[in-house]
Amino acid sequence: MTVHKIAILVGSLRKDSINRKIARSIASQASERFHSEIVEIGNLPLYNEDIDAAPPAEYRAFREKISGVDGVLFCTPEYNRGLPGVLKNAIDVGSRPYGASVWDKKPAAVVSASPGAIGGFGANHQLRQLCVFLNMPMMQQPEAYLGGITGDKFDADGLLADGPLKDFVGKIAKAFADWVDVIVRARTEIAEDGAHAAKGR
Amino acid sequence: MTVHKIAILVGSLRKDSINRKIARSIASQASERFHSEIVEIGNLPLYNEDIDAAPPAEYRAFREKISGVDGVLFCTPEYNRGLPGVLKNAIDVGSRPYGASVWDKKPAAVVSASPGAIGGFGANHQLRQLCVFLNMPMMQQPEAYLGGITGDKFDADGLLADGPLKDFVGKIAKAFADWVDVIVRARTEIAEDGAHAAKGR
Amino acid sequence: MTVHKIAILVGSLRKDSINRKIARSIASQASERFHSEIVEIGNLPLYNEDIDAAPPAEYRAFREKISGVDGVLFCTPEYNRGLPGVLKNAIDVGSRPYGASVWDKKPAAVVSASPGAIGGFGANHQLRQLCVFLNMPMMQQPEAYLGGITGDKFDADGLLADGPLKDFVGKIAKAFADWVDVIVRARTEIAEDGAHAAKGR
Amino acid sequence: MTVHKIAILVGSLRKDSINRKIARSIASQASERFHSEIVEIGNLPLYNEDIDAAPPAEYRAFREKISGVDGVLFCTPEYNRGLPGVLKNAIDVGSRPYGASVWDKKPAAVVSASPGAIGGFGANHQLRQLCVFLNMPMMQQPEAYLGGITGDKFDADGLLADGPLKDFVGKIAKAFADWVDVIVRARTEIAEDGAHAAKGR
Repeated sequence: MTVHKIAILVGSLRKDSINRKIARSIASQASERFHSEIVEIGNLPLYNEDIDAAPPAEYRAFREKISGVDGVLFCTPEYNRGLPGVLKNAIDVGSRPYGASVWDKKPAAVVSASPGAIGGFGANHQLRQLCVFLNMPMMQQPEAYLGGITGDKFDADGLLADGPLKDFVGKIAKAFADWVDVIVRARTEIAEDGAHAAKGR
Repeated sequence: MTVHKIAILVGSLRKDSINRKIARSIASQASERFHSEIVEIGNLPLYNEDIDAAPPAEYRAFREKISGVDGVLFCTPEYNRGLPGVLKNAIDVGSRPYGASVWDKKPAAVVSASPGAIGGFGANHQLRQLCVFLNMPMMQQPEAYLGGITGDKFDADGLLADGPLKDFVGKIAKAFADWVDVIVRARTEIAEDGAHAAKGR
Repeated sequence: MTVHKIAILVGSLRKDSINRKIARSIASQASERFHSEIVEIGNLPLYNEDIDAAPPAEYRAFREKISGVDGVLFCTPEYNRGLPGVLKNAIDVGSRPYGASVWDKKPAAVVSASPGAIGGFGANHQLRQLCVFLNMPMMQQPEAYLGGITGDKFDADGLLADGPLKDFVGKIAKAFADWVDVIVRARTEIAEDGAHAAKGR
Repeated sequence: MTVHKIAILVGSLRKDSINRKIARSIASQASERFHSEIVEIGNLPLYNEDIDAAPPAEYRAFREKISGVDGVLFCTPEYNRGLPGVLKNAIDVGSRPYGASVWDKKPAAVVSASPGAIGGFGANHQLRQLCVFLNMPMMQQPEAYLGGITGDKFDADGLLADGPLKDFVGKIAKAFADWVDVIVRARTEIAEDGAHAAKGR
């Protein structure tokens, strides 16, 4: 079994972000299945096609990092019933210039965590809508709308404490590793991303 | 290469439905890659859990038919910026009783066709949202928002006449056949659909 | 203050539907502000433009009923992360024939209730997407994703028992009555629904 | 008739942005109905609750500007089938700190323009989803998915040249001015935004 390289993107910049902790918990439970790294997105200038004529160093570094991975895991809060702007901005940066998207054909999964009951459903599905265009095959199940996530779910190391939530997150990690295996193996059979209708802006 | 069995669901009941014609055009261009059948949905009683205690014959026949296929292709118009009720009803019927959904793990694709410019984008993505819960791995590309589809695109047999639209539909057919290959081969690795949060109604 | 006429549509046909009970609880708490009636949708034949050339009696009766009201309240479960087919079918029926939609300019609100934690968020927002095209001004707040709704929330009459949920539902009723006042008063100022891009299907 | 103050937010930072030109064209056609200003969003640091403990000057200036207007018009491209990160970031900034959102009760409309056929439908509706939570009453019609928008639609001043598109944009401007009238007049009747389920992140 191949140990794949996974980029994790966290949709919140807060130092104490629960989604960052969830991300680390998934990574720690899946270390035998994939090597993962949280790729930082807080330093990316707001996407602007004009400045991309001579791409800022942050754009180049981010694109290079994502290009090198086998799959992508998104861990995100919901802001105002949608995807945080900061995470969408990173996705926009990686998608450009047109025809050179770093997301193309990379298998992905999304986990949304929130203190509220709804568990980020709105953000989760807005992200899924993007992944259609980005040609990222998405893991469908288990869906991960993690509601009621507060600080006391975590241990002193900031990882999930033993319990049903940790077990569920372990299942997600395993399912995602399996999904990456499936898609990486099949990559040559997945259609070229050449039909994009929305070329311009 | 295996020749898979595909169910095609058409979201309009009109006899002259352009989506039915698109469906037949896809099937005719893919006959070497998959055997397909348009499964009729116009006779399914509106879903009602009460009557499902003793399922109507139409429910049983529909579920049996879908159970036997390897993948599902949806060809649908957009009604009022969403999925037609008639198609959603069929999906609801197939998804029940809880725990015995016939959609589980079946690879799928969606084509939306319309005389208008937007090509059924709203219906297309509302359907994709359902397929997450239904655990149907979705083909992402090529996206198929077929706009400006009017009667003159079709020949006397009701199939797409030669031209770029027919060629594009041929690409969809091929990409979908490849996608079904990928997922059927990998089916044992796809996570069990056991995490459904919305058990009740 | 005018007492408006409100149609309530319930998205589940189950006799014991929790959404029907929620609907009745809202109506009973708002009886001084609006007269409401649950308009049945279980007998509407699946929408088919061909049969609509000579509309079935059920279509005609339904359209007439909706035409006579000042506003519409939707109470709906979520089926498979989306709007139940049965409710979407009713909306499709009311929207046709093209140019004679009975929904036009009617103020509306949506309540989604479910035993699960997410409270029908997916169904709730799929419905809101439709209401843009249908030109129904939507109440935005309070949002009503009613999660964890089980039989024990109701009293012997099938209405909500005293408690925070009943109070919240009372707030929804009041806010909706206010919203209907606003929109009915302003109806002449709301743009004609003449810009529909998706005329055909 | 009151002349209202309107903030226009443009979802693209490109100097030659077609959405900026559309925004200016709407403003110029509505100058007798509302005074508008394009509020810049390109200088807003990516939202981070940690830095918001002592809000950056850009956050404070942006919030103050939006607080002073009667309504908001969004003109936006679609990036990757969704709202541009840069626009979402501005919305996130304005929505915080919790309980002090500057968007609350402000009437709004959205125009999405794109060179492609679909006219930004995905971005348009992702934005509408946010406005439910933000308690911004949305103009429903006319929907404005402006497709096929290329440079030659504009005159030497960068405004729409005479023709059907300019006329349609004029209708949008008028309908929006009417909508702002309706909602501003009714503001006291619109429910307090106190039911937000997703308090935390």
